[in-house]
Amino acid sequence: MSNGMVIWLTGLPCAGKSTLSRALVEHFATVSRGTEVLDGDIVRKHLSYGLGFSREDRDVNVRRIGFVAGLLARHGVIVIVAAVSPYRQARDDARKLVDNFVEVHVDAPLAVCEKRDVKGMYAEARAGKRANFTGVDDPYEHPLSPEVRVSTAEQSVSDCVGSIVGACERLGYLSPRA
Amino acid sequence: MSNGMVIWLTGLPCAGKSTLSRALVEHFATVSRGTEVLDGDIVRKHLSYGLGFSREDRDVNVRRIGFVAGLLARHGVIVIVAAVSPYRQARDDARKLVDNFVEVHVDAPLAVCEKRDVKGMYAEARAGKRANFTGVDDPYEHPLSPEVRVSTAEQSVSDCVGSIVGACERLGYLSPRA
Repeated sequence: MSNGMVIWLTGLPCAGKSTLSRALVEHFATVSRGTEVLDGDIVRKHLSYGLGFSREDRDVNVRRIGFVAGLLARHGVIVIVAAVSPYRQARDDARKLVDNFVEVHVDAPLAVCEKRDVKGMYAEARAGKRANFTGVDDPYEHPLSPEVRVSTAEQSVSDCVGSIVGACERLGYLSPRA
Repeated sequence: MSNGMVIWLTGLPCAGKSTLSRALVEHFATVSRGTEVLDGDIVRKHLSYGLGFSREDRDVNVRRIGFVAGLLARHGVIVIVAAVSPYRQARDDARKLVDNFVEVHVDAPLAVCEKRDVKGMYAEARAGKRANFTGVDDPYEHPLSPEVRVSTAEQSVSDCVGSIVGACERLGYLSPRA
């Protein structure tokens, strides 16, 4: 069976995690590898309905994603997690549940993310209509030694995908491209 | 990719679900098919910590198992769920999250299950030390039209496995054995 792995995209809201997850799915489809995207919002609906955005609830959510991602990866799936996952400890806990873990810091300055504000959530948070919003009134603990860091404000989507895939190859989780 | 499927073992506590799940794993290993067992108790720890045994909490737990089982089955895994899953509606909800669903009623008379009482839980329930225990003070809604019914009080483990595997073949989820 091919190696499964978990590509864990962490970063501020609107840093580009969902965009990158879609581009990664497209990339892996061209090499006939099965992928599954675990998007933070979707997972909340199915696995963590009722959990809020306190640190404790966020951590439970992240560990559940880690558990499910680990199960899928054990069966050869390339799992792409797109979740803010703001706390270092919770990401490290998720890492322990996974054999081949590739932490990707999807990095962009807060000002850039806030300008993108795809769903208008930064505006709501600034207006006090949305509490515990990462980057506004909740902290984001950036990874200290991620397997990859991509800068979505400076690199193109395809450059970011190239960096991530290259890291997976260097780590021995993917066969190098010809 | 091979067909994935979910073999959902439902039945009273001590009806034989865990025993059958282990025997099914052994069977599928002989034909080189990857399996994953989602055991109700283990899943509670990783996906549903904090949930109790009220109907609502049980239903949430069963739907979460269905979600994860469906994800795995989509990637060709044979998922074996071993969970009391006492409510018909919740099992039907889980079925909707899965393409190839094989509901197996692991049937045994309550008296037989209670006599087995592997972990002493029936005794605790009878003594009033364990509330909401299925079969004692909580209902079990048996499946009305499961894909398979096995009787662990009357059939051997290997007969039960044969019935289940035969059903998977008839349903077209497994290639018939030579």
